[in-house]
Amino acid sequence: MKFQVFSELEYIVPVPTTFIFNLHAARTSHQTVIEETLTIDPVYQCKEFSSANRESRFTQLCVNDKINFKITYSAIVDLHYNKIDPQQLSPAVSVMDLDLDVIQYLYPSRYCQSDKLERLARKEFDHLENEYEKVLAINEWIYNNVEYIGGSTNSGTSAHDTLTERVGVCRDFAHLAIALCRAISIPARYFTAYAYNLFPPDFHACFEAYIGGQWVFFDPTKLVPANGIIKISNGRDAADASVATIFGETTCTSIIVKCESLDPAYKPYYIHNSDPNEKYM
Amino acid sequence: MKFQVFSELEYIVPVPTTFIFNLHAARTSHQTVIEETLTIDPVYQCKEFSSANRESRFTQLCVNDKINFKITYSAIVDLHYNKIDPQQLSPAVSVMDLDLDVIQYLYPSRYCQSDKLERLARKEFDHLENEYEKVLAINEWIYNNVEYIGGSTNSGTSAHDTLTERVGVCRDFAHLAIALCRAISIPARYFTAYAYNLFPPDFHACFEAYIGGQWVFFDPTKLVPANGIIKISNGRDAADASVATIFGETTCTSIIVKCESLDPAYKPYYIHNSDPNEKYM
Amino acid sequence: MKFQVFSELEYIVPVPTTFIFNLHAARTSHQTVIEETLTIDPVYQCKEFSSANRESRFTQLCVNDKINFKITYSAIVDLHYNKIDPQQLSPAVSVMDLDLDVIQYLYPSRYCQSDKLERLARKEFDHLENEYEKVLAINEWIYNNVEYIGGSTNSGTSAHDTLTERVGVCRDFAHLAIALCRAISIPARYFTAYAYNLFPPDFHACFEAYIGGQWVFFDPTKLVPANGIIKISNGRDAADASVATIFGETTCTSIIVKCESLDPAYKPYYIHNSDPNEKYM
Amino acid sequence: MKFQVFSELEYIVPVPTTFIFNLHAARTSHQTVIEETLTIDPVYQCKEFSSANRESRFTQLCVNDKINFKITYSAIVDLHYNKIDPQQLSPAVSVMDLDLDVIQYLYPSRYCQSDKLERLARKEFDHLENEYEKVLAINEWIYNNVEYIGGSTNSGTSAHDTLTERVGVCRDFAHLAIALCRAISIPARYFTAYAYNLFPPDFHACFEAYIGGQWVFFDPTKLVPANGIIKISNGRDAADASVATIFGETTCTSIIVKCESLDPAYKPYYIHNSDPNEKYM
Repeated sequence: MKFQVFSELEYIVPVPTTFIFNLHAARTSHQTVIEETLTIDPVYQCKEFSSANRESRFTQLCVNDKINFKITYSAIVDLHYNKIDPQQLSPAVSVMDLDLDVIQYLYPSRYCQSDKLERLARKEFDHLENEYEKVLAINEWIYNNVEYIGGSTNSGTSAHDTLTERVGVCRDFAHLAIALCRAISIPARYFTAYAYNLFPPDFHACFEAYIGGQWVFFDPTKLVPANGIIKISNGRDAADASVATIFGETTCTSIIVKCESLDPAYKPYYIHNSDPNEKYM
Repeated sequence: MKFQVFSELEYIVPVPTTFIFNLHAARTSHQTVIEETLTIDPVYQCKEFSSANRESRFTQLCVNDKINFKITYSAIVDLHYNKIDPQQLSPAVSVMDLDLDVIQYLYPSRYCQSDKLERLARKEFDHLENEYEKVLAINEWIYNNVEYIGGSTNSGTSAHDTLTERVGVCRDFAHLAIALCRAISIPARYFTAYAYNLFPPDFHACFEAYIGGQWVFFDPTKLVPANGIIKISNGRDAADASVATIFGETTCTSIIVKCESLDPAYKPYYIHNSDPNEKYM
Repeated sequence: MKFQVFSELEYIVPVPTTFIFNLHAARTSHQTVIEETLTIDPVYQCKEFSSANRESRFTQLCVNDKINFKITYSAIVDLHYNKIDPQQLSPAVSVMDLDLDVIQYLYPSRYCQSDKLERLARKEFDHLENEYEKVLAINEWIYNNVEYIGGSTNSGTSAHDTLTERVGVCRDFAHLAIALCRAISIPARYFTAYAYNLFPPDFHACFEAYIGGQWVFFDPTKLVPANGIIKISNGRDAADASVATIFGETTCTSIIVKCESLDPAYKPYYIHNSDPNEKYM
Repeated sequence: MKFQVFSELEYIVPVPTTFIFNLHAARTSHQTVIEETLTIDPVYQCKEFSSANRESRFTQLCVNDKINFKITYSAIVDLHYNKIDPQQLSPAVSVMDLDLDVIQYLYPSRYCQSDKLERLARKEFDHLENEYEKVLAINEWIYNNVEYIGGSTNSGTSAHDTLTERVGVCRDFAHLAIALCRAISIPARYFTAYAYNLFPPDFHACFEAYIGGQWVFFDPTKLVPANGIIKISNGRDAADASVATIFGETTCTSIIVKCESLDPAYKPYYIHNSDPNEKYM
C-alpha cells in the first residue's frame, strides 16, 4: 500500500543553533521509500547521517544567522503490512540470550523510569502466560486507564507522571507502555511515525516490544489504523528519537504533517477494542 | 478497654535546636486518658500547648546546650471502641455544607498530592454507591496493591511516589489513602497513634475520612487490631502531625514505643480480609 | 490611597459542581474596604464565610444545573501603605515563642517542599545577620535566578520544580520563596492580591514572612509597585489560597481582572533593583 | 603505575535471575590490564561480551537454582596517567561536527534530566570562556554545593533530586555534573572505576566530558587521587553502566572492593581545592 507523507517545520532562529531533524521515512523490511525530497528554504548547508542499523536518517544543520527557515520533507512510501499471528511468534528469548543492542532497551531511560514500576508491572502483568499476552495487556491497560487529551502534557512529562495523572498524548502513552514492559524485563523501544488519519494531524508515537526474537509493534492510543503507520525512527524514548532536536534557542512557528493513502483500495484496519480475536499487526 | 502506652526518644543535640513533640495520647470522646507522665532527662524547661480542638497536646522545648537528652511519655488510656455500622451513617454532606475546618482536609498537602490523582480516583472509586463504600474501596485497594516493607521509604516519600512504586510503611499507606479520598472530594486526615501488637513496635499512622458528618477511621495496613489504636493526633499529613518536629540538627539515637493491654478480657479485633461483612469500626 | 478593584470570572458547568471563590479584598489594618459588590449571574444561591482571622471572605456556591454563569466582584479599597524600616523591626522571635497559628507556616506544604531545601537554604542564606536580611536575600535570589515567563508552568508546578527549571509565574516565585524561608525556620505564607499595573492583568501572588513578630510583605517578581497591592487572602500556598477552588468539572471561559488608582496624586513605588537603600514596604 | 584491584560480590538467589556484571578493568589507551582472574563460586556457566568500543567487558549469567553465589574479580592494571594541560586542548567541536556515538551523550537520560537544567546551566556556566573552563566550573560548583554523605540517597535518586537536596554520594555527584554539561550542549558520560584510597572502600563513579575532540576526566567528589582511578566502564548514566544489573529478585549479602598500589614510588595526586593552578588530569 502506497502512502504520501509530508512534513514542514518553520523556525525563527535568533541565536546560533544546531538542529538535528529526523523526518525521513525509515528504510526497513516493512516499508520501501519509493521517492523522497528534503528541502531547506533558504538553502542552507546540512549534513546527513544514518542510525547504526541504517534504517533511520537524520539531517543536521547549524544556523548561525538570524533567519527564519523552513524544512520540508515529502515521500512516497510503500508499506508492507503484515498482521502478526501471535500463535506463530517464537518462544520468549531469555535476557541471557539477548544481544547487547537489544539489552539497552531493558534499561530505564529519561522518560521511562521502569525501575520505579517493577512492583506494579509484576503484579498486574507478570502472571500472564507469554510475552505477547503481557505486552498486549499493557497496551490495553493504558488504553483503558489513560485519557488522551491533546495539549495536556509537555516535553518534560514522563511515564512516572502519566501513571499518576492518567492523561497524555501519544508520546506519553508510548513512554508508559515502554516503562511497563522493561519493568518486567521485556525490551521495548520508542517509535515515531507518520500516521494515516491522525486528527489533528501531527507526528505519531507508539512502541515496539521484543517478543520471540522480533520487534512487535503496538499502539496504546488506538487512534490510527495499524496498517497506516510509516516508521520514522526508533529510540530508547523521546530523548533520542525526536523529530527535531535543537541545541540553542529558537521558536517553532508552524508544523504541518500529512499522511495520505495513494491506493484507492486501501482499507484502514483499526483495532478499536479489546476483542481477543483482534490482534496487533 | 485499658491500655498502657509508652514512648521514649533519645537525642544528641550538637547545635541549638527546637523540638515540638506530639507524644500525648489524645483526649477525645473515644478515649480517656486516666493517668500520664511526661519526663525530660535532664530536666529542661518546656512549654505545652494544645491543638485548636483541644484534643492533642504538644511539648515544645529549645535545647541550647550540647547535651544528650531523653523524653519519656507514659499513660494509661481507656479506649471506648465502637464498631461503626455503615448502615447507620448519615447521608453524605455536600462540600457546600462542610465547615471551614473540615474543608481544609479537601486540599492537597505536602505528602498527599490529591490534585494529581483526580482522574485515577474518579475512574476507580467514584462509581461506588456512597462515601463509605468509596473509602472502603480505597482502603482495600491500597492493602491489595501496596507492599508493606519496613525501611523502604523515607521522610520525603509522598503519595505520588507510593502510587508508582507500590511499596511503603504505614505513613505512606495513609498518605496515599488520604490523597485518593480528597481527589474525589471526600475530606480525609492523617492520624498518628500508639497501636497494640504492632511489630516491630513503633508509632502507627492511619487515616480518617469525613463521612456523613463524622470522622470515620480506616487503616489500610491491616497490621493492628481496630480496637487497639490509641490516637495521638490528627493533621493534614505527616508535615503537621509528626510525633517529633525538629528545627535544627540533631541525631535520634533511640526510639522505644510500647502499647499493651491492661485488660485480661481484651480480644484484638482484626480486619484481615475484604469480607464485605467485616466492616471497619 | 484609594483603588478600584474588579474581577469577573465566567464558567461553563456541565456537571454538578461546587465553587469556593475568594475574590473579596481582605479587611485588614492595612486596607479598608469602602464599598464592594458581588454579583452572580444568573442569580444563584450562595454562602459566604470568613477565614479564622476574619480578614478574608469566601463565596461558596453549588451549581447543579447545566448553565453558564458569571461571578463579578467590584470594590473600592483604601490602602494604607507603610514602608517598613528594617531597623525598626523587633528582634527575631524564636520558634519556641511562636504561636500555634504561626507555627503552621513553618511546615512544608503541597507546593512548598521546604523539607527538601534545607541544605541549600542554610548554605545560601543562613549566614546572614538577621531574619530581614535573610528573607530579602531570598527575594533577590529568586528575582535574579528565576525567569518570569507567562504560561511556562501549570497548576501542578511546585517549588521543587521551580528551583530546578528556573522559570515560572508569580505563583511559582512565591512558592519557592516560601519554601526557602521555611527551610531556615522562618514562617512564610502565600498572599493573593489585586495589583496595580500588572501586565497582562491577572490576580497576583506574592508572600509574607514572619519577622520580629509581624508579617512582612515581599514580592520576588518586582512586577508591581509595593504600594499598589490589595490583599485578598493568605494561605499555606496556592492549595488553600486559590481565588477559585472547584470541586467538579468545569471550563473557565473568561477571566477579567482590574486594579486602578482612584487618586490622581498616586505615585507607584517600585523596587526594581537590589540597591540596599531600597527596602521593602 | 601498577595497581592491584579486587572485587567480590555475594548474592542469595531465591528465584531465577539473570545478572550482568561489569567488574573487569577496562582496556584503554590509558590503562593496560596485565593479568586478571574472574571466578564464580560455585562454578556456573556464564557468557562474556564487550562494549561496542571493545573497552569494557561484561559477564552475564542466569541463575535458575536457589543458591548463594560469589563472583570475584582480581587484576593487576598498569595505569598511564597524564595530567591534561588545558592550554593544549583543541578548540571546541561544534555539535555539528560530533559523531553519532558522541551525540548520544548530549541527550537527557534516566538519572541526568539535562532538559530541566538548561536555564540554570546557561546562567551559571555558559558565560565562561571555553568548554574546559565550563566543565571545571561545574565540577567545582558541585564540590562546593553538594554534601557528600554515605547512604543519603538510593538507586532512584537523580540529578533533579540532587540539585534540590544538595546531598549524595559519588554516583549522584556524577549524575548532576553530567546533566549540567549536557544542558549547555557539552557531551558527558558516566564513568565507573576502582579507586585508590576511597574510604569506605567501594566502587567509584565520576564522569568524562567531551572537550576539544577528546574525553576529559573529572571527579566532583575530590575523594581520591586523580592518578589512582582505574576505569571499569562508561555509559549514559548508572542505568547502563552499573557494576551489577539484575533481572529478578535477589539479595546482595556482601560487597568487598579493593584498589592498592603495587608501586612503592607511587605518590597520590590529589586536587583538593579550587586553586586555578591545580588542574585536572
